[in-house]
Amino acid sequence: MTSGPDFGVDKELGLVEARIRDAIQSDEPLLTDIAEYVIAAGGKRIRPMVALLANKAVGGKNLGRTVDMAAALELIHSATLLHDDINDGGLLRRGREAAYKKYGLQNALVAGDFLFVKAFAIGGTFEREIVDLTARVCTALAEAEIVQKRHAGDLTWTRDQYLDVIQRKTAMPISAGARIGAILGGGTDAEVDALTRFGMNLGLAFQIVDDILDVVGTPAVLGKPVGSDLREGNVTLLVLHAMNDGSERRAALRDILQMPTRTDEVVARGLTVIRESGAVDRARVDADHFGFLAREALDDVRPGPARDALARLVDFVVRRNA
Amino acid sequence: MTSGPDFGVDKELGLVEARIRDAIQSDEPLLTDIAEYVIAAGGKRIRPMVALLANKAVGGKNLGRTVDMAAALELIHSATLLHDDINDGGLLRRGREAAYKKYGLQNALVAGDFLFVKAFAIGGTFEREIVDLTARVCTALAEAEIVQKRHAGDLTWTRDQYLDVIQRKTAMPISAGARIGAILGGGTDAEVDALTRFGMNLGLAFQIVDDILDVVGTPAVLGKPVGSDLREGNVTLLVLHAMNDGSERRAALRDILQMPTRTDEVVARGLTVIRESGAVDRARVDADHFGFLAREALDDVRPGPARDALARLVDFVVRRNA
Repeated sequence: MTSGPDFGVDKELGLVEARIRDAIQSDEPLLTDIAEYVIAAGGKRIRPMVALLANKAVGGKNLGRTVDMAAALELIHSATLLHDDINDGGLLRRGREAAYKKYGLQNALVAGDFLFVKAFAIGGTFEREIVDLTARVCTALAEAEIVQKRHAGDLTWTRDQYLDVIQRKTAMPISAGARIGAILGGGTDAEVDALTRFGMNLGLAFQIVDDILDVVGTPAVLGKPVGSDLREGNVTLLVLHAMNDGSERRAALRDILQMPTRTDEVVARGLTVIRESGAVDRARVDADHFGFLAREALDDVRPGPARDALARLVDFVVRRNA
Repeated sequence: MTSGPDFGVDKELGLVEARIRDAIQSDEPLLTDIAEYVIAAGGKRIRPMVALLANKAVGGKNLGRTVDMAAALELIHSATLLHDDINDGGLLRRGREAAYKKYGLQNALVAGDFLFVKAFAIGGTFEREIVDLTARVCTALAEAEIVQKRHAGDLTWTRDQYLDVIQRKTAMPISAGARIGAILGGGTDAEVDALTRFGMNLGLAFQIVDDILDVVGTPAVLGKPVGSDLREGNVTLLVLHAMNDGSERRAALRDILQMPTRTDEVVARGLTVIRESGAVDRARVDADHFGFLAREALDDVRPGPARDALARLVDFVVRRNA
């Protein structure tokens, strides 16, 4: 795990790590190795952190069960990283070779299934509401992946469609973690709903910042080259903004998106077009907007250090550079 | 579903089909299409049939919940078919193009995840014993896939290792279905254990017959070319038997297995070596042996039409030609 700012749940995050490591033990060391590799590359542990902080914010009952579900959500996240890298052809993740390059496509594919199973082995022991929510999250992840691929290079793609996809692929998992943490923590209905909204808006902000960093980030800090969205033909919010920034830019990006595949040179040219437009600043405004809505949702949660930490987490997500 | 002999659960199998079709509805029609495609190609519905018959054999309580779990097990089976075809490079399944060829690798991979999720959305609502068993089955499937790949072309591979892999990849899922059906049906502990043993031995027989058909089956009846095991370098029981059938055959198969890849001509030559050895007959003896053990396990189950149908199912599995 990347060391980051302290949000007051480092001890609990340690328990989540231990729960994950326990879950991925296997008679087949290769499965454990691949799982550990992708989990180590998984990054910021936003999902577990949100679940733990939401739990604490409403009274902190059932911390052990929240640790379990936080681990399950991170296992699901790691499974999708493995499968998404296969699907996207991404070569690097957090400065290291993608798992399917290192271990082979077949082994990485099976290891992704293994991680899904381990997540569900944990999640399946919970009450129906939480099982259903977790299954809906995973269904949404699969649907988002299909929609995104189907609309690669689609020039009719709209902001609403973009927001719908990032809601399903990023915001719902984070929101589900917040909701589950709040339910298990014994929050009031109003708090559970508020933290669900918090997670959804935090997740939208998170993904928009991810898309911004894919245009203006520093490869050495990101641990991967920039421009992967453009290479795959993903019409992110930045592309939409840039295409609204004058007919010349629109024409240039249209040409690039209509190519069957895009070379490094073409991607670099497209990134320059996006950077020279007002797209990055406008996307930051969008991210701030969802960050604002996330903080606003916290008004309906009882005051305390965990609520304050959730507010700081919004700033961290919006201001991060990796 | 292929129409086969009547084991007295056609009505209940219809309910399983309906439950599956209900589970795979999605906002993304492509996911539903791929799911329906692979489920239609899925074949004999052995897993649901065993679960339903085990349930009826011990008293038939909770039929609706058994239908649900039978559907979940078939969804898991379908998910692994999607991912295995990607991993094995199999081009045909039941006479139709493999899903990843028809819909693309990325879409097939995501559809496999989708099917896993839908299975767990059902399974996760069950009691812990059943959730744990289902998760163990899925873990074993992943582990078997890894072991099989790792030992492709391995000349030190033994009969015990072969049996361990087919236990994990085929016998455990069938056995779990029998056990779950018996638990939900209200069977005695002795009956639950007997039906678990029944399923395990039936599954071993089933896979050995599969491996026999991959050597001596009729492609038009199988709906796929023969020799796929040999092409992938899988050291099946037939290869082990053939290698014990004289030093010339051993040398010929050793050469073939040590090649990095195998052409159609090489595969055909290897199949001839296996067919001309005593391997097929000896493998049939092995299949009969496990079939016998499966029937013997039924002695500890109360008599009745469902128990008789399970006995007939053993004959069907051992004698089938596709």
